[in-house]
Amino acid sequence: MKIDGKHFHTIWTDDNDNRVVRVIDQRYLPHEFIIKDLKSSDDFVIAIKDMIVRGAPLIGVAAAYGMYLAALEAPQNQKFETSVNEVAEKLRKTRPTAINLSWAIETQLNIINQKRTFDEKIKAAFNNAVLIKDNDIETCRKIGEFGLSLIQNISNKKNGDTVNILTHCNAGWLACIDWGTATSAIYQAFKKGIKIHIWVDETRPRNQGASLTAFELGQQGIPHTLIVDNAGGHLMQHGMVDIVITGSDRTTYTGDVVNKIGTYLKALAANDNNIPFYVALPSTSIDWKTKDGLEEIPIEERDEEEVRFIQGKHNGKIKKVLIAPEASPAANYGFDITPARLITGLITERGICGTSEKGISDLFPEKSKNIA
Amino acid sequence: MKIDGKHFHTIWTDDNDNRVVRVIDQRYLPHEFIIKDLKSSDDFVIAIKDMIVRGAPLIGVAAAYGMYLAALEAPQNQKFETSVNEVAEKLRKTRPTAINLSWAIETQLNIINQKRTFDEKIKAAFNNAVLIKDNDIETCRKIGEFGLSLIQNISNKKNGDTVNILTHCNAGWLACIDWGTATSAIYQAFKKGIKIHIWVDETRPRNQGASLTAFELGQQGIPHTLIVDNAGGHLMQHGMVDIVITGSDRTTYTGDVVNKIGTYLKALAANDNNIPFYVALPSTSIDWKTKDGLEEIPIEERDEEEVRFIQGKHNGKIKKVLIAPEASPAANYGFDITPARLITGLITERGICGTSEKGISDLFPEKSKNIA
Repeated sequence: MKIDGKHFHTIWTDDNDNRVVRVIDQRYLPHEFIIKDLKSSDDFVIAIKDMIVRGAPLIGVAAAYGMYLAALEAPQNQKFETSVNEVAEKLRKTRPTAINLSWAIETQLNIINQKRTFDEKIKAAFNNAVLIKDNDIETCRKIGEFGLSLIQNISNKKNGDTVNILTHCNAGWLACIDWGTATSAIYQAFKKGIKIHIWVDETRPRNQGASLTAFELGQQGIPHTLIVDNAGGHLMQHGMVDIVITGSDRTTYTGDVVNKIGTYLKALAANDNNIPFYVALPSTSIDWKTKDGLEEIPIEERDEEEVRFIQGKHNGKIKKVLIAPEASPAANYGFDITPARLITGLITERGICGTSEKGISDLFPEKSKNIA
Repeated sequence: MKIDGKHFHTIWTDDNDNRVVRVIDQRYLPHEFIIKDLKSSDDFVIAIKDMIVRGAPLIGVAAAYGMYLAALEAPQNQKFETSVNEVAEKLRKTRPTAINLSWAIETQLNIINQKRTFDEKIKAAFNNAVLIKDNDIETCRKIGEFGLSLIQNISNKKNGDTVNILTHCNAGWLACIDWGTATSAIYQAFKKGIKIHIWVDETRPRNQGASLTAFELGQQGIPHTLIVDNAGGHLMQHGMVDIVITGSDRTTYTGDVVNKIGTYLKALAANDNNIPFYVALPSTSIDWKTKDGLEEIPIEERDEEEVRFIQGKHNGKIKKVLIAPEASPAANYGFDITPARLITGLITERGICGTSEKGISDLFPEKSKNIA
């Protein structure tokens, strides 16, 4: 998608040197647009851990490139495998909730192990990282095509009046490579000329809605309004939201959705007001091993300082301000579980399905065989 | 309650001059403790409008003192009534949602009109402001006594294990004169030695939870943890909340509660997880003329800059930082309506009742006669 009119992906390699991977440093958006070079597997561990890159699909692609660099860095002897495995373990630990992360690492490990020579391993790892990246773009485009039909239907029912869409956090192209998941339908609807307006949850504590989603939408010229996370229920009670579309960091094969903290509250409100609540996701984020999200999925606890301090711009400079008493402790849970019963449907690259084992399995029969 | 070990009310008059009213300037808490002198009715209009004082009960008491100053300032001739009425109208417009505000103004107008001489009017208005203040303290104390029984019961059921209480915004003593509404039970339970821990919603956009409730609780030595507004649902899903207690800015005689934006979302989550959700309120905030909160009560829209900017402390100074793209607009709804069906009970100064016309009328039979 576009930034200042120029087309970007969130991750790419240098034209002349595949060993230099570039990413947009998302920690300083929307105030500063900084491109960062990642030149070692350690750079990737830091980039994922410190949320220079974030969003389940982008984390997956970044981990794939990180594994390519891990293979490049590994000694060309019997210690090769140990060295690559060590990086894999470091990468796995960066963000415990995102399933794309471990999926991308495992895929790369398999491919690296299958090849015999060092050069073959490197080449295969690089090609696979590119493939994962390209697949993500195509997956997001397709998710948007299916999501578009939902927006089109609402627009038709409203005789072309503005369709109001609420989204939480950033399931945008900045979380992926291009298009985004939840935003893909939005971008495609806008390109088609459907009148839309987006309510952007600011998404505390890290404000990905205020800093990333609002930025994305603004850069593509899409009408949007920033709201606090507390406001969505009120808007839904007053008929000011036609549909909610969020992303997902992990979805159980029964349809429970692990997504940014606060998603569950919006799903409850949508449910209470009979507003369709959809989750857009690539099938790579479906967890075929987990049945009950609430019982089985550990929720990442992050640094309490993310709650106590807020980053923003003051007099042209990025600063962090303390919003609580010095002595007050805080807790910082990164995600919550939205139970399948509160979700109208899942928008995937193969179509839209209900949040049930059957609904999901029917779309992905080859995967559902692996259900534990 | 205490600040740095010294007992304070939120509003008081100078020992030697009743015409000088003092308040704690709540805009700079928790970082700076500033006392502000209010010496004219205009000072009160500004104090309420700019949220130097906030919280329904405190707004009511402040408006009562403001009306006393309005009477003092009015010309002692046939223009007296017009002058006082003009101030009343200015005060009424400062915060459209808080019912205590208009209640206090009307009470003062009645009393002023009943007296014949200027001196009698002034004296009666002052005495009535003091009475409203004293009544609020006693009302809050009683609300806490009834709320305490709920906490005690949970503590007993948990064999003395910590009772986890979630609260939204600041329904604390800083919103009242002393004790608070939702916090009164908390303070009384703590004094009684019951083990408690409070989850404090930060309460965007103005962060009254982070800046006021956390400050209050910390100053009394009560264990508490600050959380983002998004987190409550997750905590409730995982059995980490035993009871929710919030305040109310206005309650219909059928039990719908108008309170800080986001209250509705917490009530939905409490309901979904079978956690008791109580609202603590003085009966002065019951609206005997309104049946349906959602249909009938206008919701205050505030400045969008409260959403786009966040205030906090950086390098020892209070600063506001921009958290959104320069060009992104925001919407700022101050309150939402929590429907009666989601509320377990109302904690009033006469006891606890269910959220129905009958439940409320049975506690306040003399008022229910006035139901429109």
